[in-house]
Amino acid sequence: MNTFGENFRITIFGESHSKFVGVTVDGCPAGIAISENDFLEDLKRRKPLQIGTTERKENDIPQIISGILNEKTTGAAITILFENKNTNSDDYSAEMIRPSHSDFVAKQKYFGCNDFRGSGMFSGRMTAGIVAAGVIAKKIIPEIKIETSIISIGGIENISPQNQVSEEILQLIEKTSKEGNSLGGIIECTVKNVTIGLGEPFFNSLESMISHLIFSIPGIKGIEFGAGFPIAKMKGSEANDCFINEYGETKTNNSGGINAGFSNGNDIIFRVAVRPTPSIKMEQETYNFATKQIEKMIINGRNDICFALRMPVIIEATVATVLADAKLTNLKYTHST
Amino acid sequence: MNTFGENFRITIFGESHSKFVGVTVDGCPAGIAISENDFLEDLKRRKPLQIGTTERKENDIPQIISGILNEKTTGAAITILFENKNTNSDDYSAEMIRPSHSDFVAKQKYFGCNDFRGSGMFSGRMTAGIVAAGVIAKKIIPEIKIETSIISIGGIENISPQNQVSEEILQLIEKTSKEGNSLGGIIECTVKNVTIGLGEPFFNSLESMISHLIFSIPGIKGIEFGAGFPIAKMKGSEANDCFINEYGETKTNNSGGINAGFSNGNDIIFRVAVRPTPSIKMEQETYNFATKQIEKMIINGRNDICFALRMPVIIEATVATVLADAKLTNLKYTHST
Amino acid sequence: MNTFGENFRITIFGESHSKFVGVTVDGCPAGIAISENDFLEDLKRRKPLQIGTTERKENDIPQIISGILNEKTTGAAITILFENKNTNSDDYSAEMIRPSHSDFVAKQKYFGCNDFRGSGMFSGRMTAGIVAAGVIAKKIIPEIKIETSIISIGGIENISPQNQVSEEILQLIEKTSKEGNSLGGIIECTVKNVTIGLGEPFFNSLESMISHLIFSIPGIKGIEFGAGFPIAKMKGSEANDCFINEYGETKTNNSGGINAGFSNGNDIIFRVAVRPTPSIKMEQETYNFATKQIEKMIINGRNDICFALRMPVIIEATVATVLADAKLTNLKYTHST
Amino acid sequence: MNTFGENFRITIFGESHSKFVGVTVDGCPAGIAISENDFLEDLKRRKPLQIGTTERKENDIPQIISGILNEKTTGAAITILFENKNTNSDDYSAEMIRPSHSDFVAKQKYFGCNDFRGSGMFSGRMTAGIVAAGVIAKKIIPEIKIETSIISIGGIENISPQNQVSEEILQLIEKTSKEGNSLGGIIECTVKNVTIGLGEPFFNSLESMISHLIFSIPGIKGIEFGAGFPIAKMKGSEANDCFINEYGETKTNNSGGINAGFSNGNDIIFRVAVRPTPSIKMEQETYNFATKQIEKMIINGRNDICFALRMPVIIEATVATVLADAKLTNLKYTHST
Repeated sequence: MNTFGENFRITIFGESHSKFVGVTVDGCPAGIAISENDFLEDLKRRKPLQIGTTERKENDIPQIISGILNEKTTGAAITILFENKNTNSDDYSAEMIRPSHSDFVAKQKYFGCNDFRGSGMFSGRMTAGIVAAGVIAKKIIPEIKIETSIISIGGIENISPQNQVSEEILQLIEKTSKEGNSLGGIIECTVKNVTIGLGEPFFNSLESMISHLIFSIPGIKGIEFGAGFPIAKMKGSEANDCFINEYGETKTNNSGGINAGFSNGNDIIFRVAVRPTPSIKMEQETYNFATKQIEKMIINGRNDICFALRMPVIIEATVATVLADAKLTNLKYTHST
Repeated sequence: MNTFGENFRITIFGESHSKFVGVTVDGCPAGIAISENDFLEDLKRRKPLQIGTTERKENDIPQIISGILNEKTTGAAITILFENKNTNSDDYSAEMIRPSHSDFVAKQKYFGCNDFRGSGMFSGRMTAGIVAAGVIAKKIIPEIKIETSIISIGGIENISPQNQVSEEILQLIEKTSKEGNSLGGIIECTVKNVTIGLGEPFFNSLESMISHLIFSIPGIKGIEFGAGFPIAKMKGSEANDCFINEYGETKTNNSGGINAGFSNGNDIIFRVAVRPTPSIKMEQETYNFATKQIEKMIINGRNDICFALRMPVIIEATVATVLADAKLTNLKYTHST
Repeated sequence: MNTFGENFRITIFGESHSKFVGVTVDGCPAGIAISENDFLEDLKRRKPLQIGTTERKENDIPQIISGILNEKTTGAAITILFENKNTNSDDYSAEMIRPSHSDFVAKQKYFGCNDFRGSGMFSGRMTAGIVAAGVIAKKIIPEIKIETSIISIGGIENISPQNQVSEEILQLIEKTSKEGNSLGGIIECTVKNVTIGLGEPFFNSLESMISHLIFSIPGIKGIEFGAGFPIAKMKGSEANDCFINEYGETKTNNSGGINAGFSNGNDIIFRVAVRPTPSIKMEQETYNFATKQIEKMIINGRNDICFALRMPVIIEATVATVLADAKLTNLKYTHST
Repeated sequence: MNTFGENFRITIFGESHSKFVGVTVDGCPAGIAISENDFLEDLKRRKPLQIGTTERKENDIPQIISGILNEKTTGAAITILFENKNTNSDDYSAEMIRPSHSDFVAKQKYFGCNDFRGSGMFSGRMTAGIVAAGVIAKKIIPEIKIETSIISIGGIENISPQNQVSEEILQLIEKTSKEGNSLGGIIECTVKNVTIGLGEPFFNSLESMISHLIFSIPGIKGIEFGAGFPIAKMKGSEANDCFINEYGETKTNNSGGINAGFSNGNDIIFRVAVRPTPSIKMEQETYNFATKQIEKMIINGRNDICFALRMPVIIEATVATVLADAKLTNLKYTHST
């Protein structure tokens, strides 16, 4: 469904070529200072870069239509709209079933009634609402610091800090763009200063909630916490994070800051694998459902060469959303009677 | 919370040393044939093996206390209990805060009121209920075939088929057991014959729901679908799964059988990384919260050397649970008006 | 929270003086024919009448911004907006705490941050979204016929059919309007041709779901099903609805078409009590929280004399929403394996 | 579904003739003092009285199987079982479709697979779990006082205080019992000392949540808050509850302590209408689904003459459950940043 969360609950709506896309944030406490300006930086980070991302011009100006008055939350549901402009429906044909895309499954599930233009509800455009919700969520957890890094693009390790990319990667992107091909990447997220004990048993472990929301983002194919997949090769004596002081600080952080589904006070660390954009301009050989033959396909339209580059702020938003929810839920343990 | 799912909903309860652990399955249609015997095989697969798993003797005899009459589901909530026997509370001390375990975070979150014996609600014992729910879920999706393979243990690739392990791995386990250490592993799950279109937008994508439930299982640190993390290194032209016929069959399966969050008719494939058991018998150096010093710690008690070996049936159960839920939810698209 | 329902799920948002109010309908199957015109009749019925209802001019023109394409549902979340026009904020003062209104409780709960203008999120204006959701819900249950009747207004029994009111009542409204007072009423709802077996055990009985949604509507103070409160005076032999044929038709309908929480195939019948509008123009004596004295209060602004008159279509919408949800949920019993 | 609540969540299970009935309480904070003894008084109040209620001997001894250790909650899900004894299945025939009972609808919905013995999951026996959950809920809201009164039985006003019944009513019950007939009644509930602001917009108003849970109890046909149905006859000037001091105390309480869905600090007051028990021993004329004729039916078995007499403690439990949930949810407004 299009709703996620318990006490801090988000609902997203819209389609790539509908009038608006947007988000409704429910359960936000009243009195939190927030203005339209607060959204601009994160939304800018989500926007297409000069290189490697979609050429579609998106004016991501958030329209707050309820829940915020005089730059403070009112306690009502907060709804934020983004107008869809610069949509060019002519680029799309319902007959073209693009490989590794939503086209085939959406047509099957919805009997061809889905809005295929720009991938409809499966468009990356939907993440504008996710990012906006993240901005609000971050206000609920001001003590927590969320950072992301681009670890690698197209298999090349990124030596530039955080969300910058190295010259070598920029060259790869340019080359790939010219070929009409696309690239994936790996993003790492580090969350500092998390209260001990966030997360709920059994099914609402932090890993469960974070991965749930992360895998809602189009194009993610893997997530690993702490030492991740390599932990499977370690002995227990290597993998265990031994405590070094009374605050629960540990010598290593193979657990990625989470034990038994709860934050343990050390940094939460996880990495996600982002696939290369499936819409590529270069020729592909695939079954043509109209002619009923395997044929060459060329996809026109504006697409990111590497949407992994836009992921950092989206991933931050998902983590902030989960942690804001977890923090509000956790109040019952500390303030109930 | 301890409840998961929309139309096929499970609630688990119990603690390692409570009288029972169990599960309530809600939303199961009436008239599905099921008997106590149907549970035995999967429960046996979850039980400790002769080598590499806990020495605790568990009699996993399911007691169906409601929802099934004359070997058919009645439409009422199905509750299944497992009696906890052979618990030895003397092995546990509330003062011992084991590294990479629930001890520290649970004590913090619950102000020391949690049942620390055998890790309480964080015990692997809780997965008995998950497996039982999986048996019921499998009855709802009889057309679907779920298979698991042990890919590697302790970094050694497993050459034996499916859930058997090779001689080399057995020797590693034995050696590790003697050292008082533990091992992790990687499990792969393949799901065949899935209807096209299972999964829900935006937040209930199949990857979201599967990863949510998988990360509720203690000890999982990563999940990847299809090509997984290596997809981040591929070009779009390599990663794309081109269609080869009108049924949506694809030449490759880098997407792992899921596009846009929906099953695409090809096999669903994913792998999970299982950490080595954190409770090891060999000496560890960690902060002693009682003496307020870093000291050597020795953990007694019965623990798996490698609980990855018990994971296959648990992973099957989680996937079955998600797919049963998705199938029931999907009925509205095919039968609503 | 602002979300309700399981498989047909609605989320409302907006405030009386925000830019828009609206609704998001999630889980609606694809391919259902619906156009903007389909909303107009029900929305018109919700609008202020010439007499007895608010003087605020509302242009309830629905803007469908997603989820419907070429007059068919696409499977995406359907969001509908209503622009708020003709709002006059000068009529409202944050200092005025009106009796039997949201003012006091909202100020307390939200520490004065709530949008007090036009009662903010507690405005009857929010029901525009409810009515719009109801229009969509009705499309999912085309076989079901929902009818409402105004049973009485201000204690006078209504002898006119259905949603018309008698001359005697019109005169009472006019007289009450002149006095600056307000009136309540009782509305009855009859639902015909409901499939047997809608509703879910234990907590999602039809009465539970209907009453839940009904009591979300501002100004409702009671609901009764079938014989209602008078059933408490009957003997079992009088109250029992004896069957007269194999279709489950009953001689009487004291149960109001619902047994054990499920529809029994007879008409679902219930009545709701609507309070008189609390905002009255005539003088009231109440505590003035600014001056800290009990004083006379005069409320200006545009208010319904009798919002019970606008309730029929809102009540229909709530029932349609519950039944659409129940119908989609019930598919699993009839189509699962 | 069999689960209700957001932060304090209950799941009930079992059937009249299953091995156990029970409840799982999820989300209860850790460290709350509670013992098996704490359950006994409320459970005793739910039990059959000497007159007017079922003759079935129920040993309602709660078995706490998890979530409570050393008489304190541990933070884990609390599961409580009640063994079903003294069940006599011979009294029931699947062929007998009793008027105004679950028999017909359950058979239809579940294709005859439901456990018809003792009404299966529709038995009043299920309320044992509700009462047990209520005992826990009351511990979360120790400051709140919930009282119930039997207002009338069989149309006779009860002049005895609270949950006692007058001599006149006792005589009516005895007479009705001899006739093999049954009686209904009206119960009033008053809740004192409720914090201002409990309840959530829009759909989780206190009236919505209370009525939802109340209508899950078998045999309830109406609920009204404050002045209830008679408010429909009042003028606004009569119905309005004018404030008399800065604490929000009002001169009258026609709103029943709830405005805009939130507690306003005055007593919450509501009444429910309880139908006469549908299972009566005297002869009824109804359609016999086996013989396909309208025939006389005689129902044997043990049934309450007037289950309204057992309702007070059940109603208290539902209100406590809703208020505990609302209180935990409300913490975010008072403690979030």
